[in-house]
Amino acid sequence: MDYRQAIEEIRGADEAAMVQAREYCDSLIKPLGSLGRLEEIAVILAGISGQVKNKLDKRTVIVMAADNGVYEEGVAAAPQAFSMLQAVNMTRGICGVSVLSKAAGADVAVVDIGLKTETGTEAVLDMNVKRGTGNMAIGPAMTHAEAESAINTGFVIASEIFENGCDILGTGEMGIGNTTSASACAIALLGAVPELTVGRGAGLTDDALINKIEVVKRALKINAPDADDPVDVLAKVGGLDIAGLTGCYLAAAYHRKPILIDGAISAVAALIAARLCPPAKDFMIATHHSTEPSYDAVMSELKKRPFLEMEMRLGEGTGCALAFSIVSAACTMMNEMGTFGDISFDDSVLVDNRETEEG
Amino acid sequence: MDYRQAIEEIRGADEAAMVQAREYCDSLIKPLGSLGRLEEIAVILAGISGQVKNKLDKRTVIVMAADNGVYEEGVAAAPQAFSMLQAVNMTRGICGVSVLSKAAGADVAVVDIGLKTETGTEAVLDMNVKRGTGNMAIGPAMTHAEAESAINTGFVIASEIFENGCDILGTGEMGIGNTTSASACAIALLGAVPELTVGRGAGLTDDALINKIEVVKRALKINAPDADDPVDVLAKVGGLDIAGLTGCYLAAAYHRKPILIDGAISAVAALIAARLCPPAKDFMIATHHSTEPSYDAVMSELKKRPFLEMEMRLGEGTGCALAFSIVSAACTMMNEMGTFGDISFDDSVLVDNRETEEG
Repeated sequence: MDYRQAIEEIRGADEAAMVQAREYCDSLIKPLGSLGRLEEIAVILAGISGQVKNKLDKRTVIVMAADNGVYEEGVAAAPQAFSMLQAVNMTRGICGVSVLSKAAGADVAVVDIGLKTETGTEAVLDMNVKRGTGNMAIGPAMTHAEAESAINTGFVIASEIFENGCDILGTGEMGIGNTTSASACAIALLGAVPELTVGRGAGLTDDALINKIEVVKRALKINAPDADDPVDVLAKVGGLDIAGLTGCYLAAAYHRKPILIDGAISAVAALIAARLCPPAKDFMIATHHSTEPSYDAVMSELKKRPFLEMEMRLGEGTGCALAFSIVSAACTMMNEMGTFGDISFDDSVLVDNRETEEG
Repeated sequence: MDYRQAIEEIRGADEAAMVQAREYCDSLIKPLGSLGRLEEIAVILAGISGQVKNKLDKRTVIVMAADNGVYEEGVAAAPQAFSMLQAVNMTRGICGVSVLSKAAGADVAVVDIGLKTETGTEAVLDMNVKRGTGNMAIGPAMTHAEAESAINTGFVIASEIFENGCDILGTGEMGIGNTTSASACAIALLGAVPELTVGRGAGLTDDALINKIEVVKRALKINAPDADDPVDVLAKVGGLDIAGLTGCYLAAAYHRKPILIDGAISAVAALIAARLCPPAKDFMIATHHSTEPSYDAVMSELKKRPFLEMEMRLGEGTGCALAFSIVSAACTMMNEMGTFGDISFDDSVLVDNRETEEG
């Protein structure tokens, strides 16, 4: 199955199941709507699976690791060798995403989709499409064929993970310089203002941030990506990690499983997937509020809101790892709470004031 | 041990341990500060225990159940009998706090500190101080002696829970009408504006909200609580649940254990504990952002910020139940992540830009 074929077959949320879930939620022994976004998530999960009650026991965070040619322009605080080193460290269980995923009962699958140098370990899945992108400040990051191949690679690996029983997928990445490519994509796709969209990434000084903004502007000017063609944007100013994650979002929609959005890079991949296939949006759940400014711009188009305010900017999929327990709590609420029927209480005496809630 | 004695012995956070924790955190293999509030929580936990590395395995949510005489004024959407019924249902494992706590590996301890009617089950701990408060719209809710007794009851029960090995306590309540007493206390203590501080609680129509604001104003006028005497405020316009939770916060500080703030009622109890004993504040961790307006007013004085944006307004301790996994993730980060030393990486090449972060 190719991702292009899959897109033709993807259908959006099951609206009938969502209505049923909302009704069931209102029968639980609590004031109407009082569990807020937990109820909202429960309804989204029903739309995804077509079932009112769900379980999210088998969890995986997929980490797409890739290098970015734009690193040459001094846009990152860490040395480029870090991408490969940290991809390997993730499999050794000592990185942020490793320990937080383990605590959440989630596996971590690390994929070399575009690292510049080989990892030398089988613990990192070798699916390398290209040994790092070209420097987008002087030309396209990759060809259309490479971008398509990276999307498809993500689609295939994530599909395999779902076919092996995964209930929910978290999206992570490792790639020095990837907030630069992510913000370039966001600006190209959203028509956003570079000064308000490019951020400090994992850590930049004021001067370095000003340089990063200039580099993104130059990349956009030289490559002139077509905002109406998400693959053109990905190829010209994107990254192999972003392309791989785009494929993961499409796989989740195709397999009708929930997929968690992490930070800024993961978010822009979600945006690209949604542009390629609008119903894929129904399978995405936002998790933590990244401090990277492009994140808000992307969420605004996707009409998603994160629920964790952790001021995190590590990436790796750490926000997804933290969010598993919250998303899963929505299932717990639906599966285990009692109903007014169970306690023989006439809930018609309770006032339904939800329409006036914000009034 | 009486709570008044305990207050004399309570000392604030261990500053040296906090400095050590911050240093250790900076040695972990991630950009400096990139795990945001997870790092902040890790440092707070170090200040509480005096140790850089901590564990929060044994978790309890304590639920203080009590009735409020002000119910007579039509300030609540649910019938008063609900307080007792739901206290019992919590022990049957079917309420929001029951199922979310179980999923988080936490026990729930339900305490009748002031229910109007007996629960008739030993599953609810009978520590009843008074069978519901008086109607504060026509006179004081309780006497000073009753308020002190309820604080002490909370202090004694929570102390027992900590002495039995609890690592972290969540604070919940069940009491129809208790957002009315909580907002009255917040207004009295903070000098806040009733119209901006009284909310819809678990669910009120516009007309009922206007009535609730008028009732709170009347209660404050008739009782004229002394803002400089937290016990006077509690006795005149507070509740037995709020008083019990106040005692829990003092017990956490005395036993040097972390305690989680839940929603608006729990928050106002935290404020009263902090007014009685300022260093007790160091042991409190905010969790979810309650939609009840008094919550923000209280957090602003306590200088605490929640990290969960769930738009929840159920109470019961449900926000604490959800938050356990996040707070515990801060321990996981400290206990399990590798350091730059472990991977023989010279981290001096990384830029420390935290001071310019918001620049």
